Amino acid sequence: MPGPIDRDRLCVILVSTRNPLNIGAAARAMCNFGFHHLRLVHPYDPAFREARSAVGASAVLTEAKVFSTVADAVADCTLIVGTTAIGHRQLQHPLRLLKDGAASILQELAPPDHPSRVAILFGSEKVGLSNEDLSHCHWLLHIPTGDEQKSMNLGQAVAVCLYELARDRATPFPISAPPTASAEEVERLTTVLLETLNASEYIGAHSVESKEERIRRLLRRMQFSSEDASTWLGMLRQILWKLRSKS
Amino acid sequence: MPGPIDRDRLCVILVSTRNPLNIGAAARAMCNFGFHHLRLVHPYDPAFREARSAVGASAVLTEAKVFSTVADAVADCTLIVGTTAIGHRQLQHPLRLLKDGAASILQELAPPDHPSRVAILFGSEKVGLSNEDLSHCHWLLHIPTGDEQKSMNLGQAVAVCLYELARDRATPFPISAPPTASAEEVERLTTVLLETLNASEYIGAHSVESKEERIRRLLRRMQFSSEDASTWLGMLRQILWKLRSKS
Repeated sequence: MPGPIDRDRLCVILVSTRNPLNIGAAARAMCNFGFHHLRLVHPYDPAFREARSAVGASAVLTEAKVFSTVADAVADCTLIVGTTAIGHRQLQHPLRLLKDGAASILQELAPPDHPSRVAILFGSEKVGLSNEDLSHCHWLLHIPTGDEQKSMNLGQAVAVCLYELARDRATPFPISAPPTASAEEVERLTTVLLETLNASEYIGAHSVESKEERIRRLLRRMQFSSEDASTWLGMLRQILWKLRSKS
Repeated sequence: MPGPIDRDRLCVILVSTRNPLNIGAAARAMCNFGFHHLRLVHPYDPAFREARSAVGASAVLTEAKVFSTVADAVADCTLIVGTTAIGHRQLQHPLRLLKDGAASILQELAPPDHPSRVAILFGSEKVGLSNEDLSHCHWLLHIPTGDEQKSMNLGQAVAVCLYELARDRATPFPISAPPTASAEEVERLTTVLLETLNASEYIGAHSVESKEERIRRLLRRMQFSSEDASTWLGMLRQILWKLRSKS
């Protein structure tokens, strides 16, 4: 697993956001992935007030800072990254795919280091970041969307970017395969299944041998866990008992 | 880059979704990442009708299929994957982190193969997938969210899952570093800067030598591109001309 990062040195900056649901969604994604510093540059005012006063608004949202210019919002940051939906905009900015750009951002957030601080800017729902906004950025980040619909929903774009930053830092789940059934357990199951198939007349007297082999192979392919083999054995014994008590 | 995948063999299945905005957001994320088959299991009816009739509803949304049970919705699928926000739910299902689970899903979608078809299930906004829903799944997928706020917004969760599936299939941007300035270009710039600093009396007669060296090193650290060196040269020549014409 890669080294730790200082998530408090990353700011998410939303520029000219109109829809309060998007501000709320960005804040929620930040909570999901453990980032806390939200800044807003001239958000549409009623939208921001609505989002902040929503029931259950997170600390990220209530503590979000509002700025009137991009320059003010990024003033204390050392790396400023813009996001763009347009892969080949004619801009004089280096463009990186999210996974590559995220690697550079994570390097900046790795302690111990000089107190670098990274800002990721997201533009408005309709037009994204303006050329003026982009001129404050060192480089641009692009989520690899298809030609069919390049532009992402703002809240979803924030979620995807923060997921990429958190992606390789999650503790993988232990592979907890249950204990496999032993050959003895599988053979016991085979015996009871064959008795059941005889009792139910699935296997007729003339086809016993080839069927037995097929069923033995069938049960081995199923790779029972010890517990599942035991469950099957219980089910089949009950069925067999019922079949025999009826005849 | 990894091999191609057949995106038409993946279905996104939303179970018991209440909010039409979330259905719309899921459809938009599918368009963003090139997936087309959306299925809904007993969606809240007015919500679905509202989402489908929204202005600009995508083909994904208008062609979405509605089912009354999970069993019907997954009937033609060969791998059924559920999503869960709860990393350690006491469920008898194998749990995989998104990046690991996505790798398995991508294997199923790799042509040429038997026509396997994968379903990814997302539960309702409030309670996620029920135990009954989960009993149709082969294993569960978990987006690695933090303890602070484990549960993701539905539209954002869909976007993050589909991003992970598309992530390694994007064509990286060519690294197009502009040509670096030659030593000759940087030395020309150095000369003009020094003349300008002399003309502006930044460099006094007594400190010429050490300052010259510092400024030469300063300009080398900046690693100018050829074009930027030329721009600086133009700016400085104009400034120098103005300084001299004034004196």
